[in-house]
Amino acid sequence: MNNFVIILSHPSHAGNIGAAARAMKTMGLKHLRLVCPRVDYLNEEAVLRARSGVGILKNAQVFENLSCAIADCQEILGFSSRQRELTMPIFALSDVFSNLDFYAPTALLFGNETNGLHNDELMLCTKHVFIPTSDEFSSLNLACAVQIACYECLQFQNKIKNQNQPQKALKRKNLPKKASAQERAHLIQSFEHLMLHSGFYNPKDPGRLLFRLTRLFNRIDLEKTEAHILEGIVHSIFNPTAHRK
Amino acid sequence: MNNFVIILSHPSHAGNIGAAARAMKTMGLKHLRLVCPRVDYLNEEAVLRARSGVGILKNAQVFENLSCAIADCQEILGFSSRQRELTMPIFALSDVFSNLDFYAPTALLFGNETNGLHNDELMLCTKHVFIPTSDEFSSLNLACAVQIACYECLQFQNKIKNQNQPQKALKRKNLPKKASAQERAHLIQSFEHLMLHSGFYNPKDPGRLLFRLTRLFNRIDLEKTEAHILEGIVHSIFNPTAHRK
Repeated sequence: MNNFVIILSHPSHAGNIGAAARAMKTMGLKHLRLVCPRVDYLNEEAVLRARSGVGILKNAQVFENLSCAIADCQEILGFSSRQRELTMPIFALSDVFSNLDFYAPTALLFGNETNGLHNDELMLCTKHVFIPTSDEFSSLNLACAVQIACYECLQFQNKIKNQNQPQKALKRKNLPKKASAQERAHLIQSFEHLMLHSGFYNPKDPGRLLFRLTRLFNRIDLEKTEAHILEGIVHSIFNPTAHRK
Repeated sequence: MNNFVIILSHPSHAGNIGAAARAMKTMGLKHLRLVCPRVDYLNEEAVLRARSGVGILKNAQVFENLSCAIADCQEILGFSSRQRELTMPIFALSDVFSNLDFYAPTALLFGNETNGLHNDELMLCTKHVFIPTSDEFSSLNLACAVQIACYECLQFQNKIKNQNQPQKALKRKNLPKKASAQERAHLIQSFEHLMLHSGFYNPKDPGRLLFRLTRLFNRIDLEKTEAHILEGIVHSIFNPTAHRK
């Protein structure tokens, strides 16, 4: 499960961060990242609730923004119980792992305890994941949500283990390599730059153009080669002579 | 999900009890029972962590012992990560609901935070359930364990809903009625009484006789009719003339 990271964005209760580390430990996940934690995540309560997960807590990486925290990941699973007007492909938790390359660098992203994930955070995700709940009350405690997510992750891993290994390996070998979050972010910037230059994008009247472009490039399971081609196109527009043969 | 009850035996942290109530609420479970809680389960921390589950917390029923708490239940699922020498039929959580009558009165039983379920508590169960975890560290927080259990419960309910309803109802109608925990406990007492009387059971050298008998009657998915027959046999031994025709 080394390819999975848990990311908590703007967590505000140290006890929850500690409890999330414990939840990860029970299911064999190791890498915790925190985006702008609003509390001292190594305080007494956090350490107490982490129990044997205290090592995970102490090794947690802290980031100033979400883009940096997800840069090296390919799949970003954004956990949110709220439907959005413009959403990413949406999956129930129990279905999501069979819809991605289980061995790809993958982030499981959870929002702040009170507000959950913001729209702009969700737009950086490749998939929107919901944990099925009662219609009456869907607000899971943060650590409990992490616990269920890690549990399903381990369940899926165990399922794969029980399947034919060589066949799986073969299938994986033939998979095209996917773009990382950083490569996608770079591509979006390149297009923003291009649109500004061409006048298609007017920052004084932005509308939802950048939002929709971000959603597009994060949603489509973009391959590395495709990202390179698109970057090449943009580059060729700015440097026409370098590309003409 | 009205037929499910969550039972916490000897819980020692009020925060966990509150968090368990919240976990239940998010998955649509309503009935909480506490066996000898070691704390004030309605204190500030419990109420705070229960959030919208505070109604469940306030309506929790308190029992002096486990036998009373499970008396009206048919299936008792004992959650424990520890293997025992003599165990009940053992299931991974994700498999257990398909191996029982989902509409029967069912208890999901969790032990104390530090010690888990004792052997004598597990012997009152009809099934031993484990939540798959990492080999390295399997100690789930109590509320997190309740959360995963309730989540799988709701998952299974949603699965049933998506299947053919009339067929399910028909199948259920033809199921023989099962004995309740109270009926099984009574039967075990009757046999104890009988064995004492016959001299087969020597309380000064009890061995594991009662333990094994308890395990037997709780393990075999005993039907009401079968329990009545066995009770009748014992009764006929003590009152031979009443039964002779």
